[in-house]
Amino acid sequence: MSEFIAPLERLIDKFRSLPGVGYKTAVRMAFSVLDMNAEDALDFADAIAEAKKVIVHCKICQNISDSEICPVCMDESRDRSVICVVESSKEVAAIERIREYNGLFHVLGGLISPIDGIGPERLKIKELISRLGDDTVKEVIVATNPSVEGEATAMYLSKLIRPLGIKTTRLAYGLPAGGELEYADDVTLFRALEGRREI
Amino acid sequence: MSEFIAPLERLIDKFRSLPGVGYKTAVRMAFSVLDMNAEDALDFADAIAEAKKVIVHCKICQNISDSEICPVCMDESRDRSVICVVESSKEVAAIERIREYNGLFHVLGGLISPIDGIGPERLKIKELISRLGDDTVKEVIVATNPSVEGEATAMYLSKLIRPLGIKTTRLAYGLPAGGELEYADDVTLFRALEGRREI
Repeated sequence: MSEFIAPLERLIDKFRSLPGVGYKTAVRMAFSVLDMNAEDALDFADAIAEAKKVIVHCKICQNISDSEICPVCMDESRDRSVICVVESSKEVAAIERIREYNGLFHVLGGLISPIDGIGPERLKIKELISRLGDDTVKEVIVATNPSVEGEATAMYLSKLIRPLGIKTTRLAYGLPAGGELEYADDVTLFRALEGRREI
Repeated sequence: MSEFIAPLERLIDKFRSLPGVGYKTAVRMAFSVLDMNAEDALDFADAIAEAKKVIVHCKICQNISDSEICPVCMDESRDRSVICVVESSKEVAAIERIREYNGLFHVLGGLISPIDGIGPERLKIKELISRLGDDTVKEVIVATNPSVEGEATAMYLSKLIRPLGIKTTRLAYGLPAGGELEYADDVTLFRALEGRREI
């Protein structure tokens, strides 16, 4: 369908390639670009090009970075005996936000998902194992999502890492803060019960 | 808040400037750009820059166009005795989509809205009036939205145009197709009753 002139259709198509954007939303977005003043629009275009150009993956932890080694890996004050393994840079940001964790990170760049044809060789697991070579690291926290893929990845990693004599842990399961017991799903409730603690 | 490195924050900010995009959605969009291959991302940037560069407003009807005079205004087969007045190019596209209307258009570029400080002088009303100078145009269909601003604009235009001896009409009000009488709001129901037709 080609309701609009070509350059506008092209822009609409581009917006549709973003996650969660359907045709009507893409049309609204494209029009909002036309409504911007020229400077803002070019700045938008440049922000995309620049982000793509300058953002690389940290050589150590694979997190996104604008330098070869990211600020977290460079930071001498961080605890080098713990590595928190996550799916993507978004989870690094979430954990950094709570200002509670002072160790290092490792970004896998995905989760094991046979259904999507993603095997362990597609993830940055080799790079993780190579970081465990000397005796610095004492614990690997596997902080993947509590989904089927997250579980599978966590199991795979623990089988790989435990033989190296390094403690492998997983984030706690349970009721989310502010959640209601009444509406918790069965698996969550089962795990909250199973993981109960003395108070 | 600066959770991410500067070039990424900048891109997130840009996505946030789009309609209906909050912080979390903007983060997802920015990451999806990072996940694109370089070619796609640069193509996206270029689509924005190009759209902004080549899309202009038709000198006659003010609709967006990639040429000085838009294809509708150029089309000799269209009925030049009717002009359909709309708020923006999006409404032109909607009306063109039903393939029922064969007249010309005029895009106001907004609606009169005293609350937002938009008076008639901010709209392309002067340009509309200048198109009514010769005797070609017999009818002006005011197809603004059925909102307070749309109504105000329609009233304003009809007061301006009727003295020129040109018929001024408004789109019909009533129940939307597929709508349910039970759930129709009072104004819609009142207008549907008022505008009833013999069958």
